[in-house]
Amino acid sequence: MYIVYGNAESGNCYKVKLLMNHLDIDAQWEHVNILGAGTHSDEFLAMNPNGKVPVLALPNEDCLWESNAIMNYLAEDTAYLPNDRLLRAKVLQWQFFEQYSHEPYIAAARFIVRQLGRPKQHEATLQAKKVGGYKALQVMETHLEHHDWLVGNGITIADICLYAYTHIAPEGGFGLTDFPFIMAWLERVKAHPGHVKMR
Amino acid sequence: MYIVYGNAESGNCYKVKLLMNHLDIDAQWEHVNILGAGTHSDEFLAMNPNGKVPVLALPNEDCLWESNAIMNYLAEDTAYLPNDRLLRAKVLQWQFFEQYSHEPYIAAARFIVRQLGRPKQHEATLQAKKVGGYKALQVMETHLEHHDWLVGNGITIADICLYAYTHIAPEGGFGLTDFPFIMAWLERVKAHPGHVKMR
Repeated sequence: MYIVYGNAESGNCYKVKLLMNHLDIDAQWEHVNILGAGTHSDEFLAMNPNGKVPVLALPNEDCLWESNAIMNYLAEDTAYLPNDRLLRAKVLQWQFFEQYSHEPYIAAARFIVRQLGRPKQHEATLQAKKVGGYKALQVMETHLEHHDWLVGNGITIADICLYAYTHIAPEGGFGLTDFPFIMAWLERVKAHPGHVKMR
Repeated sequence: MYIVYGNAESGNCYKVKLLMNHLDIDAQWEHVNILGAGTHSDEFLAMNPNGKVPVLALPNEDCLWESNAIMNYLAEDTAYLPNDRLLRAKVLQWQFFEQYSHEPYIAAARFIVRQLGRPKQHEATLQAKKVGGYKALQVMETHLEHHDWLVGNGITIADICLYAYTHIAPEGGFGLTDFPFIMAWLERVKAHPGHVKMR
């Protein structure tokens, strides 16, 4: 059985939980305290030298880290990862967009508001994160205006990836009402069989 | 023939150039002025709504963006992308590491030093980027101490990906002499048949 080292507050961990629920994959979850030293113990760093959750421990004791790499591993040969070479690359395109242009703004704003309690000394950073976050949301909105799903004609791990932090963007102060196509897409992901809430 | 919209100063574009040279793929390169409005014209945004280079235009006029997605597309069914499911996921693991934990620090520091001329008002940001960049280099060093290549027993797109900004890290003020295993790995990548310089 897989073991996932993760934290319920992390959208990156939720991606793995959500995909595993869709794929009906059983796993043992081990809670890691990401605000404390949980990701910086020698034991944890031996699994992921980059000190981040989630980590997937395989039955053969090998470890895989980076949420999007884990999703690609789990989704191989399922409907959540197309076989077509270009569609597969487009799934990756949206996953790399998420890690570079979306998560660093939207998850970071949420962290400042929710975990740090929006202290005054982080207000300028928060506002800068808002700018980048809204830009990422606009990129998604532009695409979703003409497509039901991010890649191809059905749900893929690209949708699961971007659902994770987009659906909790309001916790970082992002309003989604100006993004009707994102809101409709969030409902489509949520209504898809196999869905499970983050918490 | 492929058309690549890119800029010779961009390590993300160099990844594509380097891989194409390894794979002996011909492409037409179109220069995009990333410091001007080149990535924000309506024409460019129609190819990549996220307004970033590189963009790969396919012979069928479809477009693919995100350097690492482009590399996965091009390397499919070649020795640069393993067939084994876990090894493929590990290639992605390092590529996502690069985009989240490496490039935002090492490329950003280089940009402040090289493109902006290290102005005083960016000194605090530069120092913060140094901390993150050295952390990423240490993660690579720890791995490369025990492995010749990032994944498996030969060069893959994970190595090409991380070579791009690591080999020019000194342009952002990073010293590599404390990272002997990274330095030896850089030489291995450089010595591999098919190598081409960034500029």
